[in-house]
Amino acid sequence: MDGIGKVLVCNRGEIAVRVIRACRELGIPSAVAYSAADSDSRAVRLADEAVCVGPGPSPRSYLNVPALVHAAGKVGADAVHPGYGFLSEDAHFARVCGDLGITFIGPTPEVITAMGDKTNARRAMAAAGLPVPPGSEDPLSGPAEAAERAAEIGYPVILKAAAGGGGKGMRVVHRPEDLADALADVAHTARTIFLDDRVYLESFITAARHVEVQILGDQHGSIVHLGERDCSIQRRQQKLVEESPSTVLSAEMRERMCAAAVAGARAVGYSSAGTVEFLVDPAAEFYFMEMNSRIQVEHPVTEVRSGVDLVAWMIRVAAGEPLAFGQADIAMTGHAIECRINSEDAANGWAGSFGTLERFVPPAGPGVRVDTHGFPGYRIPPYYDSLLAKVIVHADTRAEAMARMDRALAEFDCAGVATTIGFHRALMAHPRFRAGTHRLDFVENHLTATGELSDTEL
Amino acid sequence: MDGIGKVLVCNRGEIAVRVIRACRELGIPSAVAYSAADSDSRAVRLADEAVCVGPGPSPRSYLNVPALVHAAGKVGADAVHPGYGFLSEDAHFARVCGDLGITFIGPTPEVITAMGDKTNARRAMAAAGLPVPPGSEDPLSGPAEAAERAAEIGYPVILKAAAGGGGKGMRVVHRPEDLADALADVAHTARTIFLDDRVYLESFITAARHVEVQILGDQHGSIVHLGERDCSIQRRQQKLVEESPSTVLSAEMRERMCAAAVAGARAVGYSSAGTVEFLVDPAAEFYFMEMNSRIQVEHPVTEVRSGVDLVAWMIRVAAGEPLAFGQADIAMTGHAIECRINSEDAANGWAGSFGTLERFVPPAGPGVRVDTHGFPGYRIPPYYDSLLAKVIVHADTRAEAMARMDRALAEFDCAGVATTIGFHRALMAHPRFRAGTHRLDFVENHLTATGELSDTEL
Repeated sequence: MDGIGKVLVCNRGEIAVRVIRACRELGIPSAVAYSAADSDSRAVRLADEAVCVGPGPSPRSYLNVPALVHAAGKVGADAVHPGYGFLSEDAHFARVCGDLGITFIGPTPEVITAMGDKTNARRAMAAAGLPVPPGSEDPLSGPAEAAERAAEIGYPVILKAAAGGGGKGMRVVHRPEDLADALADVAHTARTIFLDDRVYLESFITAARHVEVQILGDQHGSIVHLGERDCSIQRRQQKLVEESPSTVLSAEMRERMCAAAVAGARAVGYSSAGTVEFLVDPAAEFYFMEMNSRIQVEHPVTEVRSGVDLVAWMIRVAAGEPLAFGQADIAMTGHAIECRINSEDAANGWAGSFGTLERFVPPAGPGVRVDTHGFPGYRIPPYYDSLLAKVIVHADTRAEAMARMDRALAEFDCAGVATTIGFHRALMAHPRFRAGTHRLDFVENHLTATGELSDTEL
Repeated sequence: MDGIGKVLVCNRGEIAVRVIRACRELGIPSAVAYSAADSDSRAVRLADEAVCVGPGPSPRSYLNVPALVHAAGKVGADAVHPGYGFLSEDAHFARVCGDLGITFIGPTPEVITAMGDKTNARRAMAAAGLPVPPGSEDPLSGPAEAAERAAEIGYPVILKAAAGGGGKGMRVVHRPEDLADALADVAHTARTIFLDDRVYLESFITAARHVEVQILGDQHGSIVHLGERDCSIQRRQQKLVEESPSTVLSAEMRERMCAAAVAGARAVGYSSAGTVEFLVDPAAEFYFMEMNSRIQVEHPVTEVRSGVDLVAWMIRVAAGEPLAFGQADIAMTGHAIECRINSEDAANGWAGSFGTLERFVPPAGPGVRVDTHGFPGYRIPPYYDSLLAKVIVHADTRAEAMARMDRALAEFDCAGVATTIGFHRALMAHPRFRAGTHRLDFVENHLTATGELSDTEL
């Protein structure tokens, strides 16, 4: 491809496999940067080249900027794909790459910085006309200001780390007397994880849904949306299931939300794939939550409905290609659901289960896509997240998609580690999920101590 | 489902898995009838119930009508799905089932009989207005009539068993002096395989393509087509690769051919899924070849382009449901290719390779579907055909589909038996296939004795 000669994949697991597949289909050689704990990984086997960038713990490998750019030099890669997590939203890494003449496959460092600071993103999106929840415009100066703002907008409120993301550094506060402690706690977490203790506060919308809009922009000013994903099945702010379309959006609200996402992306000069996340009060309004300036775990939901290969297009637009289609060319079909299969033991506090996959036969057949780095005999290393496979189904209707997902989960043959397959099967059968009336607190309100889903609220 | 309470799958391999998946998604319990050689098969593992119907050799199990209907009685199945091959086009089996009140998931015994007799099918389709190749209207009375007819229409001619099908019982004759021997040979084969030595003769269209049209009809008179599949990559009359759309049809010819297929199906009162096969002389005309009154191996090519689940609809229409869509509702998108991965050793005369799958990780990811009954540790029994997996890709364009197929084949990790993966990779890279100008004699003309594809004609 003109503009990109070789891609270094700076990630692991299923997303590394996903990017390698896209490179191969585009005819671009790929190399993968891997940690010593991943030397026997599927990504290492599938990439054209592989280069070890350090030991297992990610600060010494997948977060090790000097080791990664050194690896790029070694294999002659002129582009890097950061996947998600790790350095995918690290403006410093994007800038270092740019300075070295390496194409960072993602938005510009300026956009990453602007969207990474959540108070700044909130301000920018409000300026672009997006509805934002009532809250503090700037980081809070301390407990006094927090109490004042919370009293103004009313409880419950949510405290958020300005530098946060991925569901980390957030806390809901229901009563004034808990505010000061919660603020100290979030600030501490933020300082520890993000090295930035700025915290802001927003109205917490109870009974809300998480709905996000997929954006794709090129470097020539063209930006399209690819519809929404509803990610309201979450546990502790971690998404477990995503689907499209959302069961709660009216056509009118969908249109406004997608247009708002495009307007926001355009306002910040966005290129590459990105996601604008909203909280939706189905009876009333949607509110901008944050923008993720990377490919997301749940991107296949959008790919199967739109037929657009998002990862391939990230690479193409990074190489300077204009989008080959406009908004009118994009047709979303049917209904898609993704279940994230984690190697976790739901019956045991969802503890990560790391071991060897003694058997591993993922589902297949019509309307089923599985993105996984697993294979029989694979030893899951203990250093990383527990995502083992994404099962994505596509069918004409939501009912058919749920039936297809249940069929797929039923045939998933995995032994050697505990997985969340059972949770997902129970979810597909749950009357509240089937009715599509669940809210963000659904899992919290229905999950028993032994990891079962109760039919009624607990 | 109203009308069908439990399906007995009277088949094995990937198509048994395919039917079981469709049943599960429709919420219909499935049982599989299996031979003793298939007791450890994926179909047996996936079906709700399994019942052994005899030892390995198919006359004693998959072709054993009394054993199959007995099994249906035992498990309480009120419907049977015959898959392809075996009893799928056996009118006697369909009739026995009907007499016992068991729904045969396929067309009526009358239609199976009418289409199974190739001279009769030819006559019926000609009457419905379909172009047929010049040839004998009735079975040949002997060598004298054969010589007379061949002289009339001109050489080369093709001799075909009237009861034939699946590429068996055919022979091309280029010179008058070879005709009598060839006739005796085809009659002998036909008598042995089909217990019916009637043979007819047609003009053999050299440099032709095999293009077929997928038909789907209900029991209420509604019949639609789902576009064409080009199956011109064949070796010894066995299809190796199928794609859609065909690279040689003009829009005008496609429209006429699909309309002809619907007219032919309507004329014979067709219901269920079926295929009308044509020989196409790209420069001139298409000719009716035969109609297959069953689901075909290559049906996923059509499923991924149309989004229509053909196997589910076979079950639905057999249960009496009307089609939920008309011709105008069917939109074919992009380009699809299927490669049949056989456990055969191309370097060794394509001999069947039967053994244990020591490693088996099929490809996955965006736009890739794999239908297979294989799994790690599976022992391929020696009694049946060598189809191991169907790799189906879907992409926007033919070029992207070929790149995706090559990517998929490259990551297919299979050890323990020889496979045709290498042949398919060479094909995807072959200039003649890439140009889309190959003909039915392509494999014959380019395959070396050691199973390699030559760039130029041999």
